[in-house]
Amino acid sequence: MFRNTMPRYDLLSDEAMATLDRGWRRIVSEIGVEFLSDRALDLFRAAGQRVEDNTVFLDPDFVLEQVAKAPREFDVAARNPEHSVHIGGDAMAFGAVYGPPFVRQGQVRRDATMEDFRSFAKLAQSFDTLDSAGGVVCEPNDTPLDSRHLDMTLALQTLTDKLYMGNVVSGVNARDTIAMSEILFGGREVIERTPVTISLINCNSPLRWDDRMLDAQFEYCAAAQPVVLTPFILMGAMSPVTIPAALVQQMAEALSGIALAQLIRPGCPVVFGSFLSNIDMQSGSPCFGTPESATGLLCTGQIARHFGLPFRTGGAMTSSQLPDAQAGYEALMTLLPTFLAGANWVMHAAGWLEGGLVACYEKFVIDIELLQMMREEFTPLEIDEASLAFDAHTEVGHGGHFLGAMHTMERFRTCFYRPLLSSSENYERWMRGGGVDAAGRAEQIYQKRLADYEQPPLDDAVRAELEEYVVRRRAELGD
Amino acid sequence: MFRNTMPRYDLLSDEAMATLDRGWRRIVSEIGVEFLSDRALDLFRAAGQRVEDNTVFLDPDFVLEQVAKAPREFDVAARNPEHSVHIGGDAMAFGAVYGPPFVRQGQVRRDATMEDFRSFAKLAQSFDTLDSAGGVVCEPNDTPLDSRHLDMTLALQTLTDKLYMGNVVSGVNARDTIAMSEILFGGREVIERTPVTISLINCNSPLRWDDRMLDAQFEYCAAAQPVVLTPFILMGAMSPVTIPAALVQQMAEALSGIALAQLIRPGCPVVFGSFLSNIDMQSGSPCFGTPESATGLLCTGQIARHFGLPFRTGGAMTSSQLPDAQAGYEALMTLLPTFLAGANWVMHAAGWLEGGLVACYEKFVIDIELLQMMREEFTPLEIDEASLAFDAHTEVGHGGHFLGAMHTMERFRTCFYRPLLSSSENYERWMRGGGVDAAGRAEQIYQKRLADYEQPPLDDAVRAELEEYVVRRRAELGD
Repeated sequence: MFRNTMPRYDLLSDEAMATLDRGWRRIVSEIGVEFLSDRALDLFRAAGQRVEDNTVFLDPDFVLEQVAKAPREFDVAARNPEHSVHIGGDAMAFGAVYGPPFVRQGQVRRDATMEDFRSFAKLAQSFDTLDSAGGVVCEPNDTPLDSRHLDMTLALQTLTDKLYMGNVVSGVNARDTIAMSEILFGGREVIERTPVTISLINCNSPLRWDDRMLDAQFEYCAAAQPVVLTPFILMGAMSPVTIPAALVQQMAEALSGIALAQLIRPGCPVVFGSFLSNIDMQSGSPCFGTPESATGLLCTGQIARHFGLPFRTGGAMTSSQLPDAQAGYEALMTLLPTFLAGANWVMHAAGWLEGGLVACYEKFVIDIELLQMMREEFTPLEIDEASLAFDAHTEVGHGGHFLGAMHTMERFRTCFYRPLLSSSENYERWMRGGGVDAAGRAEQIYQKRLADYEQPPLDDAVRAELEEYVVRRRAELGD
Repeated sequence: MFRNTMPRYDLLSDEAMATLDRGWRRIVSEIGVEFLSDRALDLFRAAGQRVEDNTVFLDPDFVLEQVAKAPREFDVAARNPEHSVHIGGDAMAFGAVYGPPFVRQGQVRRDATMEDFRSFAKLAQSFDTLDSAGGVVCEPNDTPLDSRHLDMTLALQTLTDKLYMGNVVSGVNARDTIAMSEILFGGREVIERTPVTISLINCNSPLRWDDRMLDAQFEYCAAAQPVVLTPFILMGAMSPVTIPAALVQQMAEALSGIALAQLIRPGCPVVFGSFLSNIDMQSGSPCFGTPESATGLLCTGQIARHFGLPFRTGGAMTSSQLPDAQAGYEALMTLLPTFLAGANWVMHAAGWLEGGLVACYEKFVIDIELLQMMREEFTPLEIDEASLAFDAHTEVGHGGHFLGAMHTMERFRTCFYRPLLSSSENYERWMRGGGVDAAGRAEQIYQKRLADYEQPPLDDAVRAELEEYVVRRRAELGD
């Protein structure tokens, strides 16, 4: 997996951080955080926090005591140990887009299906730069609502041998995910020793944690499976319009969710989550790849490190309706800061289009190219006498050409990043090849990947047990 | 103009910088630098440097003594004082693409014409985010070769009231540019007091300065007009394939050119130039927006600051043949590091396509959008108690909505960057609007800009004198 040992690009002075610290402390103590879960309220009450209706007024120092129980870094196992990941420190792990109800494939935009879900899972498996297909790569709208989490989990478990995310629609779904993980990995004890899923718990920002997601959180935390406590903030809608206000709110929300995780199971691995962008103030529609989201992202990284927590942010977000120039630059507007901040868990790293409503096949390939380039760019330069290639100058001379130089011949295969998608063909050659744009070439690449896909091996007995579980549970759920 | 007061993203340790320093010192002293100009060789010889044939073997300490004579920062006047720029420090100035022989307009790619040149100059005038149309915005292939510099300079002087670059094809062309600048600004003394042009002197890398560009440099330096001494390096062709080797060569070349500038006229304003990318090692074609070019760019900024020199690097480069997703992400792959490095003079900031062979109208607009976003992103965040908007939380409450909050109403017009080009329209609305991609919307924007263009006022007598000069000189040049 990728380790980002380059410098972090930090924007916040000590003074600014102190101001933000005062801000979240005031919010959690004076305004409080809503938890729409009696179990959560009971835990906070039992821990001595003031509870009124559904609102918990938190002592900031108590919050920090809980936060201190969370591990700074942890491992998550994949069924193929080569694909296991480390979350935290300088490690960066990447998952595909999460949640879109639609897909785009060339000029066609339509409801996502289970077949799309499987295709994206296969693509995620086939690209080394992704550590995970994520969770809900797209919504399989052609499968029954109550049992589709079973189909998705089975697909992630069998079509990939990488890390997968847990379903969080309800406590029931979380229990199914955990049960299927126990089957795949060999029992509860095994998965409690080293977690095997990671799950996204979104805040209903501002300052409200909803019941269904909390039910899921209870299940995952009890099973020592990491949760990503994520304020879901589009500034102007779910938070005030000023970035510092959004950051302070994000701290209040993420830290309160993390505190709950530690009350459920002290030491449970958690991730400081961030999903932070802004709306268009004219139309109200969400915007991605904005300057404000980039600034917020960079600050978020620094804030998470301030609390000693691994963090999730970034991705390849865009508002664009097509895999066009806007999609290209907006994706990088978020991805480059993602690397500058050294985000530990990066969701939506491939395939995101149209504000997250669409999983796009072509965009998936574009994003893989961006991820690969970023990994190259964020690999430290080795500078020593040998790298200066003095002898090559002696060989080539003034005004000469280095293509045939010994120094070049020894290195030409690996010296530069080799693009997956980008073309530097001259115009005539490019025209002879059909004059295909980046989206068109991306289409060729994903189709070949799907054609070449090979399912990773899995023990037949395990596969059978998983399939039996799905059949049985589907029946129990009435689908 | 834009001041970048954000932190610089520096990659080089003191140790790495010392290694690079040893490298360029060894190159200039042991391999030497070729100057294909007797005047240049005479100056170096007279200053005590060893000259053999066309090669000057430079004492590195002598080079640094010369470099120390250059101003750390300087002003360049535009005829509209509001558009005058400062070069150096935290100031960043931006010019359009420079040099393409072709243009692209929608699906049409063709030879550039003088009419294209004028259109791009108008576009550069119309966008506040550009400080200059640059120089050769495109090659006006339909005008006579020997006199087109007169047409281009006249167009830049009359269609824009911004800074313009000097022609560097020959000493003759440079003298014409200077003479026309004297007419526009009121005489030699005026332009020697505060320079009014900035000129690109490219090195014929590796380690060779050619006669025609040097002739131009002599003219500009004698007139105290700034020159941008720019190693032209595509790694693998004009330098070794290792980034540190390219950096060291770049130092040797830029510093030797700067030393010459100071020998011609001590104190002449100069810019440490960089044009650094790599070739595709399979095809030999130039690649732009690569991870290697981004890393080289970041290091270049740090190196220029190490020598106390303003520097030129970056832009909106891409190898892409179309204004597609690749063009979008590659442009930002260079532009974002341009801002992270705080480049002082940014050429090719708008309109560059196809490795610089094409000036593209749609790409011009795309790049303006990127520049505007970068300027927003690299504006420091103000973090104080008021920015935390505590009262907005009291007003909105848990799970509420901030769109109608007082805090939002007071700020909604200016709180977020408002895109020029990017669309966040929902799918249905976007489809009703024609389902136009970013390139298509860019076309609409540039056409409206051209339709709305208004020529900046200019004294009739000055205009007439400029036009007379062009007519007279064109006749003298036999065109």
